[in-house]
Amino acid sequence: MSPIVLLTDFGHKDWFVGVMKGVIWRISPSSSIIDYTHEISPGDIFEASFSLLQGYSYFPKGSIFCCVVDPGVGTSREAIILKTSQYFFVSPNNGLLYPIYEKEKGEIWEITQKKYFLSPLSSTFHGRDIFAPISAYLLKGIPLEEIGRPFPLERLSKLILPSCKISSSRIEGEILYFDRFGNAFLNIKEKEFLSWKEGKEVFLELKGRKIPLKKSFQEVPPYEPLFYIGSSGYLEVALNGSSLKEKWGLKRGDKAFLYKMG
Amino acid sequence: MSPIVLLTDFGHKDWFVGVMKGVIWRISPSSSIIDYTHEISPGDIFEASFSLLQGYSYFPKGSIFCCVVDPGVGTSREAIILKTSQYFFVSPNNGLLYPIYEKEKGEIWEITQKKYFLSPLSSTFHGRDIFAPISAYLLKGIPLEEIGRPFPLERLSKLILPSCKISSSRIEGEILYFDRFGNAFLNIKEKEFLSWKEGKEVFLELKGRKIPLKKSFQEVPPYEPLFYIGSSGYLEVALNGSSLKEKWGLKRGDKAFLYKMG
Amino acid sequence: MSPIVLLTDFGHKDWFVGVMKGVIWRISPSSSIIDYTHEISPGDIFEASFSLLQGYSYFPKGSIFCCVVDPGVGTSREAIILKTSQYFFVSPNNGLLYPIYEKEKGEIWEITQKKYFLSPLSSTFHGRDIFAPISAYLLKGIPLEEIGRPFPLERLSKLILPSCKISSSRIEGEILYFDRFGNAFLNIKEKEFLSWKEGKEVFLELKGRKIPLKKSFQEVPPYEPLFYIGSSGYLEVALNGSSLKEKWGLKRGDKAFLYKMG
Repeated sequence: MSPIVLLTDFGHKDWFVGVMKGVIWRISPSSSIIDYTHEISPGDIFEASFSLLQGYSYFPKGSIFCCVVDPGVGTSREAIILKTSQYFFVSPNNGLLYPIYEKEKGEIWEITQKKYFLSPLSSTFHGRDIFAPISAYLLKGIPLEEIGRPFPLERLSKLILPSCKISSSRIEGEILYFDRFGNAFLNIKEKEFLSWKEGKEVFLELKGRKIPLKKSFQEVPPYEPLFYIGSSGYLEVALNGSSLKEKWGLKRGDKAFLYKMG
Repeated sequence: MSPIVLLTDFGHKDWFVGVMKGVIWRISPSSSIIDYTHEISPGDIFEASFSLLQGYSYFPKGSIFCCVVDPGVGTSREAIILKTSQYFFVSPNNGLLYPIYEKEKGEIWEITQKKYFLSPLSSTFHGRDIFAPISAYLLKGIPLEEIGRPFPLERLSKLILPSCKISSSRIEGEILYFDRFGNAFLNIKEKEFLSWKEGKEVFLELKGRKIPLKKSFQEVPPYEPLFYIGSSGYLEVALNGSSLKEKWGLKRGDKAFLYKMG
Repeated sequence: MSPIVLLTDFGHKDWFVGVMKGVIWRISPSSSIIDYTHEISPGDIFEASFSLLQGYSYFPKGSIFCCVVDPGVGTSREAIILKTSQYFFVSPNNGLLYPIYEKEKGEIWEITQKKYFLSPLSSTFHGRDIFAPISAYLLKGIPLEEIGRPFPLERLSKLILPSCKISSSRIEGEILYFDRFGNAFLNIKEKEFLSWKEGKEVFLELKGRKIPLKKSFQEVPPYEPLFYIGSSGYLEVALNGSSLKEKWGLKRGDKAFLYKMG
């Protein structure tokens, strides 16, 4: 059976995620549920979208991603389903799914059939009342036609990840994300980096410091910086054995520059 | 198969929850285990009880709730099972289950048969040695009569959630809980609120500020306060897009007052 | 079916653990995966090894432990499998598995067959690219002979937990670990403690204070210290109802001394 994969900003402190699982089980007993992450910063659609983009493609065909970062809960923002060639994504229409749509295309549906919602419907916890049950009904094979109606692409909320600026002599990028180790993810993709690099020696400049390109953390001394092609296909910057984010006081949006040597 | 649902204050740092799952699996292979929460503040029976009360009813019939917040572990406090019309609840007899009992009634049993415990029995980790195995044996269908004996209601530890004070002109309530977003849960229930309100305009006073009643966060400007009927049927107070708890320096027990307009 | 048990330092913030589960499911659909812990301090092989040692034996026979605390990822450190009489352990060769090997013995294999890795292979996320897939293939029954080759014991990275010093009048121990409650685990085992004690009255000295031996937290007044035989077979020191680590400002490696009375 396909898994339901949960991505939320509900954290681990409260009963919110547990209750979503209970709701799923009441509708579709013995469902398999995998936690993608629940520690998205509260309401941070950008972070949710970026996180989802890094890892969704590692899940089996048929996986149903239930993505609930929903600062507009209770307003008129729609609830939607994106069906790609491999997956379903269920989410508020707030931009979260836009980067996935850009990459995968697919069909977009608006969730309209209230008979599939919990009743009474709260105005602040649609993860429990709408997104969990809809995910469970999708898993049970209820067709999209019964859950809602086609949603016009032009009404899909946009969220564009900022792209880097490439010239022959340099690339200007910025920090999009920090992981739990304090490593920084840049908006520079492996492919465009390698194409620009043309086999030459390069270095990265961040906060006025020159940082070398390496393959693994231990190629630099402890606490020294390096950059590398990260596991998600983006350039990353890190310290060997420590948190770059904390030690250097970095924040999302900080600029980084790539130069060719000599 | 019914799930075992875990609620503890064991956190995520240590192996405690993992080991409880291992123990369950040794007794009942391939059990489904759902995490309700493990981030109850250490030893905080009130918080555990309140959390359980908000979400247990969303789980499928037959669910076995294994609830271990147990500051009295190793003392003479009993281990009990509450069997309601829908669920089993396994827990120390320390008040945690009292609000559930008040609401659902049911049978209370004391766990006495040591042959179902792990051996040797530790004096500080009954989650592993008693509550996990008993939950697994319940899932396997071992009858209550074999696990223990009826427990007299008068010996059930009490825990009474403080109730609000209602007069025709105002309701005096207090904060019972903060969620991960810093939203405050008051001890004022939807039903009593609506009945008192009689369709009139009302406002909430908290820390000397007047707070309007709204349906969703975005009906007030960013960082402004609102109160609303929360998804668990209690009134909640929040800031749009920020943590009320942190920004206003609130704590559990802080008073809040509802008034009618004009 | 046996579970795959995950122990990592990947935390809960990012998609890393979720993605490992996705990878496992693509190879071995509907696998059962149990989280041991993901909150090992970043890169702390000692903590990972100690944590694993405390709880692995509670899991069912056939469990596959996938242990990824891997500060040397991308270097020449090998990926290995330890097969004991009951379990498989998959891990980088960095000492993490050494205490388990010392206790259980068994066969050690080096993972060499790249056809079982994800491709392309990253240089910084072998949890996703090597350890998750190898664990999934083990679960599917791929024999060790197909995954790799026998690994010479003399090349197994060592990690020795510091032992205590025992004389007839005292035991000198040290703090190895703090749990989420701030309780301190000493490197003094129940068995050696009881043998040394010879039924006499004893006390523990830590930070110049005399601490009594008790069975449960509530045998001392709130916030007072006690020591006891912990649930994992090590002596532990704690405050009743509070964090010893925080209140007393302790750190790993701090010394503690046991003395006989009178």
